[in-house]
Amino acid sequence: MIKASICTIGDEILIGQIVDTNSAHIAAAMEENGIEVRRMLSLSDKHADIVETLRKELEQSDVVITTGGLGPTKDDITKPALAALSGSTGYKRDERQLEIVHRILRSRGLDILPVNLAQADVPDKAEVIPNELGTAPIMAFSFEGGKRLYATPGVPHEALGAIPLILEDIRRHFPTSGHILHRSLMVYGIAESALSEKIAPWEEALAADHIHLAYLPNTLTGIRLRLSTTTGTEHEQKALIERHLSELKPLLGDLIYSWQDDCLEATVGRLLKAAGKTVSAAESCTGGEIAHLLTTIPGSSAYFLGSVTSYAISVKEKVLGVKAETIAKHGVVSAEVAAEMAEGVRKLTGSDFAVSTTGLAGPGGDDSNPEGTVWIGVASSRGIVTVRKQFRNDRKRNIERFAATALNELRKEIERSL
Amino acid sequence: MIKASICTIGDEILIGQIVDTNSAHIAAAMEENGIEVRRMLSLSDKHADIVETLRKELEQSDVVITTGGLGPTKDDITKPALAALSGSTGYKRDERQLEIVHRILRSRGLDILPVNLAQADVPDKAEVIPNELGTAPIMAFSFEGGKRLYATPGVPHEALGAIPLILEDIRRHFPTSGHILHRSLMVYGIAESALSEKIAPWEEALAADHIHLAYLPNTLTGIRLRLSTTTGTEHEQKALIERHLSELKPLLGDLIYSWQDDCLEATVGRLLKAAGKTVSAAESCTGGEIAHLLTTIPGSSAYFLGSVTSYAISVKEKVLGVKAETIAKHGVVSAEVAAEMAEGVRKLTGSDFAVSTTGLAGPGGDDSNPEGTVWIGVASSRGIVTVRKQFRNDRKRNIERFAATALNELRKEIERSL
Repeated sequence: MIKASICTIGDEILIGQIVDTNSAHIAAAMEENGIEVRRMLSLSDKHADIVETLRKELEQSDVVITTGGLGPTKDDITKPALAALSGSTGYKRDERQLEIVHRILRSRGLDILPVNLAQADVPDKAEVIPNELGTAPIMAFSFEGGKRLYATPGVPHEALGAIPLILEDIRRHFPTSGHILHRSLMVYGIAESALSEKIAPWEEALAADHIHLAYLPNTLTGIRLRLSTTTGTEHEQKALIERHLSELKPLLGDLIYSWQDDCLEATVGRLLKAAGKTVSAAESCTGGEIAHLLTTIPGSSAYFLGSVTSYAISVKEKVLGVKAETIAKHGVVSAEVAAEMAEGVRKLTGSDFAVSTTGLAGPGGDDSNPEGTVWIGVASSRGIVTVRKQFRNDRKRNIERFAATALNELRKEIERSL
Repeated sequence: MIKASICTIGDEILIGQIVDTNSAHIAAAMEENGIEVRRMLSLSDKHADIVETLRKELEQSDVVITTGGLGPTKDDITKPALAALSGSTGYKRDERQLEIVHRILRSRGLDILPVNLAQADVPDKAEVIPNELGTAPIMAFSFEGGKRLYATPGVPHEALGAIPLILEDIRRHFPTSGHILHRSLMVYGIAESALSEKIAPWEEALAADHIHLAYLPNTLTGIRLRLSTTTGTEHEQKALIERHLSELKPLLGDLIYSWQDDCLEATVGRLLKAAGKTVSAAESCTGGEIAHLLTTIPGSSAYFLGSVTSYAISVKEKVLGVKAETIAKHGVVSAEVAAEMAEGVRKLTGSDFAVSTTGLAGPGGDDSNPEGTVWIGVASSRGIVTVRKQFRNDRKRNIERFAATALNELRKEIERSL
């Protein structure tokens, strides 16, 4: 098995100013491709320490991936450290990355400064993998014994974008053994421990067939169940995994929202598009998060008409048509207000479906509606469904859970109407 | 200065299943207390690797803090590794932790199993720091040269709770060294490279005064400039950094949006709250992101009235009152539509300020409005300001840049109106 180390370079991580998410993304991708991550490290912007540490990692790992320290400013010193480590005697300017630098700055209407051009300079022993997402290139270096070191920028979306390019290079340089097959399905609305109990016998049967199961929980997407196997041919692997998957449906029913690797908003979009239907949203406590999630999907303008964030009561009444007496009688956080909000925005936009939220993300709450309470409404030609949920997180996390749960209730109602 | 290493132990981090947030919290606490975190590591649950790595870290650091691997299951092997590392010859049962184990299990109505009692067993060289938040104790070990190793459970709230206890022990064992001072300010609307050129002479003067400058860029918050120094007394450090900061204002003007560590939405909130003014939003291409960002701030209901996401033209016309002839004449992505959207939502909600976006997040665009184009409108009693920006990112990143830029334009207009 190929062994890898992941090194994050930058003082901002060592003083706890930012949380390192790049390493987790890279590690997950390595693991999916059958590469064992031996260790992760975070180093400060100190030349000698970077050189020494990377040298030691290359003794024990086949692949070392660094992120960070490639910016144009003086505190970014990964490049000279890699020059020293690789025995480079100077720098060369990479024409492909230079073109990208020009293109990016031009498109932003910015002047091109010497410091920008220097972004395309790499140690002469580096092989450049052009980075289309930013001005700093991805670099690869070869070391004794065919080992490879990759350096990517630390900007998260650039590091993310570099992963498939690095994997492609790894596949070229390291002969792989067996094939790895992964299949994921998505589950929402059950805790990890409860899910684990529910499918325990099924999970045991998987193990007997050399299929590994991973639970990958996420606030916005629920739990991803990932099945992986390295045993057998690709054809055998597919057949085996399909057989086990078919036994999962009766166990989990509509807790499963996707048999692929889709998030909730993509699933809702796919269902609406297929049915030729539209949706709108009326958000109070989620403050725009549902609309934001729906519109992260390319092409969402085909089914998402719009939304109203009604933070103030006046907006609930005036724009959405929620009745003042409903609020007076039941309170803002109530099934009745959720229902009138959903029906209100459905009428206002003329959409087929509408989803609404009213609740308390916190901090603060009261006895009848503690912090973390949300009422969700889903309106359609079938009528209005309302659901109450209670979470126990901080404000940001509560907002995410409210929005994801609302999307899931919307998803279930769309499925029921088909 | 005391040097520290932070080691996270557990396979779940190395396969990318969870993001390590403990290390960042511990690092931030160390940094605040003038302890330099030299490096962070994540190790797998392998005995020899843990022992060997911790031994090496103890050669270079005064303090080593480990998290994780202290659970009751077989794959948690930090305890035997620490027994080997410390030269312990056996285990001892800690009575204070045992009492906590009993109390916690009783309060959860659980039976006490032998595996639970063993949680209170520690290597005989360990000093126990009782962990009131969980069943596994915090352990401290002494090594040659007065060095200290601390082991805390990996459960995030338990690791968090252990930090002050560990700091207390560090203060007892290490004579205090110099003070470290950090100050951050926030800049938006300039690329890192252009900023670097603009403040180059100023940055050089910093270095001469032993002040370190770091650029910390982020799509949503712009660039955080962090100044740090370890030279001089706390009072001298403050005076020195204040003097340099005062020279930055004429160089950067309103590119600086906060002299603290605030994000844009917090800054907008602070300004509005101080002025007793309100805001609303009309979003097309940002799809709810502006409202979402504004409402992540606790207490935002004091100034955020609501928003309309007008993805469909019908919603722009019907809800926001954008004129059909404006759209026909200028197109949806235009200064005129941005202006009517901002003014429309301002009237609809009765807010003092309103911000709007209309653009193309992609994929797709045309010659006059390529992908990444956005028109931003800000309406207030002073009139309407519109601004066009062009970005070059993927859909998700474009949406974030549109929203952040809109918040920044809103911020500038609020500042101008004060």
